[in-house]
Amino acid sequence: MKKIKVNVEPESYEIFIGNGIFKNISIEIKKRKLFRSILIVIDKNVYDIYKKEIVTVFGNYNYKLEILVLEIDEKRKSFESLDKIYSKLIENKYGRDSLIIAIGGGIIGDIVGYAAATYMRGIQYVQIPTTLLAMVDSSVGGKTAVNFGETKNVIGAFYQPRLVLIDTDFLKTLSTDELVCGIGEIVKYAFITDEQYYNYFKRNIDRLFGLDEKVITKIIYQSVLFKAGVVEADEKETGIRKILNFGHTFAHAFEVEQNHRIKHGQAVIAGIICALYLSEGIGILDNIKLNEYLKFIYPMKKYINIEEPDTKKLLDIMSRDKKNKDGKIKFVLLNGVGNIAIDIEAERIQVEKAINKMKKFVE
Amino acid sequence: MKKIKVNVEPESYEIFIGNGIFKNISIEIKKRKLFRSILIVIDKNVYDIYKKEIVTVFGNYNYKLEILVLEIDEKRKSFESLDKIYSKLIENKYGRDSLIIAIGGGIIGDIVGYAAATYMRGIQYVQIPTTLLAMVDSSVGGKTAVNFGETKNVIGAFYQPRLVLIDTDFLKTLSTDELVCGIGEIVKYAFITDEQYYNYFKRNIDRLFGLDEKVITKIIYQSVLFKAGVVEADEKETGIRKILNFGHTFAHAFEVEQNHRIKHGQAVIAGIICALYLSEGIGILDNIKLNEYLKFIYPMKKYINIEEPDTKKLLDIMSRDKKNKDGKIKFVLLNGVGNIAIDIEAERIQVEKAINKMKKFVE
Repeated sequence: MKKIKVNVEPESYEIFIGNGIFKNISIEIKKRKLFRSILIVIDKNVYDIYKKEIVTVFGNYNYKLEILVLEIDEKRKSFESLDKIYSKLIENKYGRDSLIIAIGGGIIGDIVGYAAATYMRGIQYVQIPTTLLAMVDSSVGGKTAVNFGETKNVIGAFYQPRLVLIDTDFLKTLSTDELVCGIGEIVKYAFITDEQYYNYFKRNIDRLFGLDEKVITKIIYQSVLFKAGVVEADEKETGIRKILNFGHTFAHAFEVEQNHRIKHGQAVIAGIICALYLSEGIGILDNIKLNEYLKFIYPMKKYINIEEPDTKKLLDIMSRDKKNKDGKIKFVLLNGVGNIAIDIEAERIQVEKAINKMKKFVE
Repeated sequence: MKKIKVNVEPESYEIFIGNGIFKNISIEIKKRKLFRSILIVIDKNVYDIYKKEIVTVFGNYNYKLEILVLEIDEKRKSFESLDKIYSKLIENKYGRDSLIIAIGGGIIGDIVGYAAATYMRGIQYVQIPTTLLAMVDSSVGGKTAVNFGETKNVIGAFYQPRLVLIDTDFLKTLSTDELVCGIGEIVKYAFITDEQYYNYFKRNIDRLFGLDEKVITKIIYQSVLFKAGVVEADEKETGIRKILNFGHTFAHAFEVEQNHRIKHGQAVIAGIICALYLSEGIGILDNIKLNEYLKFIYPMKKYINIEEPDTKKLLDIMSRDKKNKDGKIKFVLLNGVGNIAIDIEAERIQVEKAINKMKKFVE
């Protein structure tokens, strides 16, 4: 098992990464003596598969314990689902000394984190991500959120978990679609971290899809380590943390424009392709590098399944993105692997061109 | 004009207290250069009276400015009202560089503060309290909240304003009922601050009700100064800040039990009476002091209009209070003026007795 410590105010917390570690969660909770009443909020898909394990792990917990099973997806990352969590807490008289454990993908993590941040002005929570996407990305960093209407993650809070437990065994029951989701973010880390990690990823992409234990643990560890470092430096995303949004201004727009029909990983890979083309289009990335990077992404393009995106609508959605001020669209772009430019404004025509080139690339 | 600086993380902010200072708000906003797009959220009752002044003050603001007029009361301190604020922000494409200005009583302040805390994970806000209650209490301290179902303030965040502007001119159009609301909190400060302030208050109670300019400014200043000191020492209410809840465990229960028909100030005065009786009942306050304090409160008892409270229901509501853990009810009690005991657990029978004595006192 690997451990990463994240140093943030007011309290640091640990991330555990390994296989077969979920069974120890109860021990870790007891060891920390931080809480007594526990509410587990779990994705229905995960619960259906792991019900037995969960009952075994928490079966002998001798204080208040409730399980809330949520059917969740991007459309249901809403105030309606949030209401269910709040209602469960209130009806069962959970006090300030309570702990919520989120078991599921990024959507469960985000919404549970937000509920924890706002219930009684903040109770503790633990993240147990079960998807590759949540493991490498959303479970770390303390960004919590819910959607409001069509606007993704527009309501939220910065709120850190007390512990993140990443058990790679959960990946064994993950669909290829869900795996691609996580790989989208990992591709992002390959671009924003450094050449070494980029090359390791390039060499091991087949083993990654094959869920090779060693490769998957190393890749999760590297991604989380990088993200934790960035979060420590800039918890509230006023500066350097923005590099984590590489490809994401486009990706969020694709998700909304495609009515959340496509997976986040697909959207991120498409978004990265757009960002690469835009970087070249505005002259900060040279053509040779662009082609090399596109070659690297080429094997993954088969997973992108975006139906005829409406470029005008995409631009409108992007101008509403919470990262933007004054209606101007700012991008995170690339000079080269590990060399990121933030807050780059681009002309509408350049953005359109980048989107159109991406469309052609994935055809 | 008096100024108080509140030193909290990540940024300190100022509180201005005086008469005729509202007209300078626009200058203060420009001086700080902290924001561009402004949303004013204002209580309909206040807007109906001060529409002309508000248009004059903000009329020449040369950037995005919208006004959202809300009909608000305790029942509407809800997710429905919150939705209206979020929708206004999203529809008008407010970004992270936005400022919300709350103009109204404590309910507007709490809900706008919560909206500011959670919109895009936090935008700036300014408090302009227009009721005595909001001036002496809720506009300072960064506690933001909304109700959920029957449970008051159960959803919220600690989030500090950038500026609080207290213009006592707003009090001139306040009803006696609303004035009593604020006086409830001031009575609390009289008990928890020190003998000097207690005696000043006792001597000047008639002038306070008469809105004597000097007395009202001094009393607001003293209350806010005391509260700001407590908030600085314990922003997140893990310790000393609890003293601000003197009388409030009872008060919140009365408000819910009476279905929000009674005003907060009434509930607080009744709650303080209960807390005094309970302090004596469990033996930490002697009988002589109890009688002296009750005599001090006596002139205000005419404002308390609680209909036959159901003691059992009150106890149930109190056990749900977010300040309590493990279903036990903890109280903030009094050894004497300026001498507060926090986290005191009391037997159910003692609590019942205190409530019954209060009922008799206000008959």
